[in-house]
Amino acid sequence: MIEAELITSLQNARVKNLVKLRDRRPRNQQGVFIAEGYRAISRAMEKDVNPEEVYFCPDCFLGENEEALLAQAKARGADLFELSKHAFEKVAYRDRPEGLLAVIKQWSYTLDDLKLSKPPFLLIVESIEKPGNLGTILRSADAAGVDAVICCDSVTDLFNPNAVRSSTGVLFSMPTVSASTDEVIQWVKQNGIRTAATTPHTDQIYTDTDLTGPLAIVMGSEQFGLSEKWLDACDQKVLIPMAGQADSLNVAMATLITLFEAVRQRG
Amino acid sequence: MIEAELITSLQNARVKNLVKLRDRRPRNQQGVFIAEGYRAISRAMEKDVNPEEVYFCPDCFLGENEEALLAQAKARGADLFELSKHAFEKVAYRDRPEGLLAVIKQWSYTLDDLKLSKPPFLLIVESIEKPGNLGTILRSADAAGVDAVICCDSVTDLFNPNAVRSSTGVLFSMPTVSASTDEVIQWVKQNGIRTAATTPHTDQIYTDTDLTGPLAIVMGSEQFGLSEKWLDACDQKVLIPMAGQADSLNVAMATLITLFEAVRQRG
Repeated sequence: MIEAELITSLQNARVKNLVKLRDRRPRNQQGVFIAEGYRAISRAMEKDVNPEEVYFCPDCFLGENEEALLAQAKARGADLFELSKHAFEKVAYRDRPEGLLAVIKQWSYTLDDLKLSKPPFLLIVESIEKPGNLGTILRSADAAGVDAVICCDSVTDLFNPNAVRSSTGVLFSMPTVSASTDEVIQWVKQNGIRTAATTPHTDQIYTDTDLTGPLAIVMGSEQFGLSEKWLDACDQKVLIPMAGQADSLNVAMATLITLFEAVRQRG
Repeated sequence: MIEAELITSLQNARVKNLVKLRDRRPRNQQGVFIAEGYRAISRAMEKDVNPEEVYFCPDCFLGENEEALLAQAKARGADLFELSKHAFEKVAYRDRPEGLLAVIKQWSYTLDDLKLSKPPFLLIVESIEKPGNLGTILRSADAAGVDAVICCDSVTDLFNPNAVRSSTGVLFSMPTVSASTDEVIQWVKQNGIRTAATTPHTDQIYTDTDLTGPLAIVMGSEQFGLSEKWLDACDQKVLIPMAGQADSLNVAMATLITLFEAVRQRG
């Protein structure tokens, strides 16, 4: 059994801070975020993203590999803390906690850090509101093989616990940049990257549009779609025609469809 | 204000029964299911699916149209019951209840009831496990304009509260059939419907495959994929090539991609 300090009190400063880290401001002030569960923590370490701290609760363990994961985290420099079941349930974000929770340092890339393919293939999203959508969008981007995901005028940050969870570990491998819409528009133009923005306000069907070459797919927010800035600046507006209810496709689904059409065309 | 019997006790038989209806067996025994929230109930009535009973809690109302919805439900024959906030929170499935919950009669179609387009375009899913995936799949099928969704060897039923919720009302308009894999295989063959089954066990890329004509896309379960029966019986196995992590695309995402490729090809 792994040896670690045992914390049982809900008044413990570490326990209180873990609860705080669900909110964006303390996350950003401390420059860390939380990854919960076996899959997320093991995916992080697979990508050489090593936790600063790991909190565990053997009473909640579901599998047999938790000890090995803890040993690996410790070998990579993490401080380990054992929590009582009561304390773990307090800090866990999930309904059915798996007894593993890591505090990981945030990172950030700038547009200039990005390594682009030849030709570049990017996904740009603007002001996505729901963390679950942001995580699903990261998965779609990963499956489509984009170079990076660029978040303009972020409303939800990538380190939100639901975004981390719903990205199923893609967060740890996909290059992501947060920047203002103005910066990103300038950057794509400087780099000769063509932008295809999905919107209902066009007749140009996405499958009839050339999505080869240096390309960024641009997607707007759930409620408001793309800003006027993007609609003015993009090289091409494209429409996904759909049957049925107007809201059957959400932004994550529209992103997936558009990315895979680009993949098809790009061969 | 709408007049209705006020229920405050958690021991009330109706309250207890609403909680029971979260489970499949009592749902099926009673032949009803629950739709929660303004959107679901109004979508149901738009499609002439009229609630048997509507439970409401004015303290939880978020908007201004709830009274009109209740009046409409009553006019269409629903019995109304007002619940105290305490009682409503007991029966609500959602974390932040909107104060509206309807009991609706289940329905069922058989394969012979289906009205097929010329050429037919169907989605077949086998043993989907997660209700949220089933609901998302219904949305995708709606957006793609399929004739019907056929569920083989159902593990999760369409009337599961999470399936109802995640279908965002599509459940009330999309024809759905539950049948055994054997029955469905026989039926598609009798009706000359070609089947394209997605699986990792082929080199045939989905975008290189003819998806025009009388077609059913066939998708397997989250954990096990398609059964041997389907893999043997299908006319075509198709692969969605993907970059990144092996599990970035879940079954709902793979369904969406395949359906929209078929839509593209079918013009």
